[in-house]
Amino acid sequence: MSKHDVRMRGFLRRTPVPVLLSRIEQHCPPLPAEVTSVTEAWGRVLAETLTAPVDVPHFNRAAMDGFAVRGEETFGASAYNPIPLQVVGQSLPGKPFAGEVSAGTAVRIMTGAPLPQGADAVLMAELAEAVGDSIQVAEAVPPEKHVGKIGEDVRSGALLFRQGRCLRPQDVGMLSSVGIPEVAVIRKPTVELLITGSELLAPGTQPSGVQIVDSDSVMLRSLVKRDSGNLLGIQHLPDDREPLRKALLESTAEVVIVTGGTSVGLEDHAPTLLSELGELLVHGIPMRPAAPMGFGLLGERKVFLLPGNPVSCFCAYDCFVARALRLLGGRNPDWPYATQTVRLKTKISSQIGRIEYVRLRLDDDGAEVLASGGASILSSTTQADAFFLTEEESEGIAAGETISVWRYD
Amino acid sequence: MSKHDVRMRGFLRRTPVPVLLSRIEQHCPPLPAEVTSVTEAWGRVLAETLTAPVDVPHFNRAAMDGFAVRGEETFGASAYNPIPLQVVGQSLPGKPFAGEVSAGTAVRIMTGAPLPQGADAVLMAELAEAVGDSIQVAEAVPPEKHVGKIGEDVRSGALLFRQGRCLRPQDVGMLSSVGIPEVAVIRKPTVELLITGSELLAPGTQPSGVQIVDSDSVMLRSLVKRDSGNLLGIQHLPDDREPLRKALLESTAEVVIVTGGTSVGLEDHAPTLLSELGELLVHGIPMRPAAPMGFGLLGERKVFLLPGNPVSCFCAYDCFVARALRLLGGRNPDWPYATQTVRLKTKISSQIGRIEYVRLRLDDDGAEVLASGGASILSSTTQADAFFLTEEESEGIAAGETISVWRYD
Repeated sequence: MSKHDVRMRGFLRRTPVPVLLSRIEQHCPPLPAEVTSVTEAWGRVLAETLTAPVDVPHFNRAAMDGFAVRGEETFGASAYNPIPLQVVGQSLPGKPFAGEVSAGTAVRIMTGAPLPQGADAVLMAELAEAVGDSIQVAEAVPPEKHVGKIGEDVRSGALLFRQGRCLRPQDVGMLSSVGIPEVAVIRKPTVELLITGSELLAPGTQPSGVQIVDSDSVMLRSLVKRDSGNLLGIQHLPDDREPLRKALLESTAEVVIVTGGTSVGLEDHAPTLLSELGELLVHGIPMRPAAPMGFGLLGERKVFLLPGNPVSCFCAYDCFVARALRLLGGRNPDWPYATQTVRLKTKISSQIGRIEYVRLRLDDDGAEVLASGGASILSSTTQADAFFLTEEESEGIAAGETISVWRYD
Repeated sequence: MSKHDVRMRGFLRRTPVPVLLSRIEQHCPPLPAEVTSVTEAWGRVLAETLTAPVDVPHFNRAAMDGFAVRGEETFGASAYNPIPLQVVGQSLPGKPFAGEVSAGTAVRIMTGAPLPQGADAVLMAELAEAVGDSIQVAEAVPPEKHVGKIGEDVRSGALLFRQGRCLRPQDVGMLSSVGIPEVAVIRKPTVELLITGSELLAPGTQPSGVQIVDSDSVMLRSLVKRDSGNLLGIQHLPDDREPLRKALLESTAEVVIVTGGTSVGLEDHAPTLLSELGELLVHGIPMRPAAPMGFGLLGERKVFLLPGNPVSCFCAYDCFVARALRLLGGRNPDWPYATQTVRLKTKISSQIGRIEYVRLRLDDDGAEVLASGGASILSSTTQADAFFLTEEESEGIAAGETISVWRYD
């Protein structure tokens, strides 16, 4: 056994969780930019600060359907003293009135249409009675009334969005309206999954004999998508050293996730390999059930070793890999889960020196512990409505106490 | 003008918002099921209730790395009185030990490996000292210790998920582990966007002359994706009756969204057309700035008429179309936005009889009104952090009051 071989000796030293988190932060700065079309930019993170290249609108326009008038000509108008104006044409969106609104005239105008020369206000359709080619104006309209002026939405040169903004639907609409065709956004991190385990059958098959069906890749592909990772591929590998070595060295992904074989058992080749080929920065953390996880570097690749047991895998991904992917993508690293304050109906047991990933069922009366620990009981996460992490220095929490939990959905 | 022609006469009658919402609910029941692979089922809504076809695990397995033993043989063992056992083989995941653990023997075993015949417990590796072919057992191990028993995660026949469940990452993992290859999920509603407006340029071009750039389609394509709609296509149409008539009749989408030309102006063909070709159930609501919206049916198609002004379009989509899409998809119809309780720094003005869509900027001191109304000022939604809807019977809310708002992100 080389100095790198930690197998069958147990974890000599566990890395504190804050240290693992700061290592992840240190090695996962936002990726470089790529250019994307504005129509595809929703949910992407801006890699540049953007200002408006034009005024919106870039011409004065009607904000209501009605008649473009010279406001001062309507002064004094009322239902008892209507003022007549001759309608000399119409202005439609994209089809403006070519002439001028001269004294005594008006132009029929639709919302969004350019205000004709000479006019300075729009009289609402409801306030004008049409009589042949004329209208009777029943109410005075002050200048600028119902006129959308140049730059009223956005002024040319104004700040639109700062670098780092995660673009919302209305944001991409805004970019389109100022005529920006494409934007620089932070590239999505590429990810490869290396699912190890000679006992694993491919998803979609039936468990049989001494083989079980891989559930980790199905969970992880969903989670990577949630965290805006770009999944390049999934490989299923036996519990052998060479295929894993080859896959690690040949991966072109920025983030490589290995599941299974990450602990200190005979068949646990991943930590030893990563330590030999690159740098195993962290192996083993005081957290249940994610304890036998690892994190390291292989050239530019960030490599996460996740336990194969499905709850451990889920917990380790969600607490650490998810954070790395979001940091690489320039996103808020925190969980997307909503929090909720609940009263505990049952106590939470915990050991000092260990963080417990506790699954809880919620109802109107409060929260009930379904499981803590239990690395292989995936049903504890599917039956749970929420989860909670104990403090490392906590001995647990008594029934009746109030805690803040994360809702899974 | 036919009886259907409402143009240039203003809205005679506005439909109360609760009536519109109940019409949407009435006409948007969950769609029929389709079958999808479990690997693609994350985020989909189950159309069937599922039970487990097998036990998980379907064999007894080691829950730790160590040695498979007969528990009773270790009784009395301690560091001062170690008990020797002969190691006769190993059991690995997928590669079980073929023989039996007989009296005085043990089998090296890795987490997840099948427990050999004869053994009933697993001794942790750390508690056994290897000496040649033997181990010295330093602690008693009660039967069943560190054994994952048949069905400990899921029992065959147990309820997994009820119809209507929106599948989480761990849920699809569970489906894979019980060997379910595909599931029936509610089909995503198909959507087509008909963007009308002769003044509109395609997204990605520069505004020029009397033309502006379409922002609605860019917002809506993002929102439809958010609400799990299946966008079939986007057509840009001029403000002419015939092209819109043709597009409405030829659309194969379940939900047709028309933007622009939905009010009562000369060029507003959409309400008249829908009324002639199908059924215009709602036209005009007491809500600013979504007032000139419509909803109706054209055969099996649900047709939404959204104002072309971008804030009106956004607000009308988000309050009504989003709900329809989520109901059709079998989802929770409510907004995905988080809520937050804030103190108003400025007052909210509102008219009795009208719901105002108010955009707010939030900071540590509270919430400041950016805009209410303002159908064309899209920047009010991009600068805002949150929004609020006034009650229809409210005259507004004073500064200093506390309200619950929806956060845009």
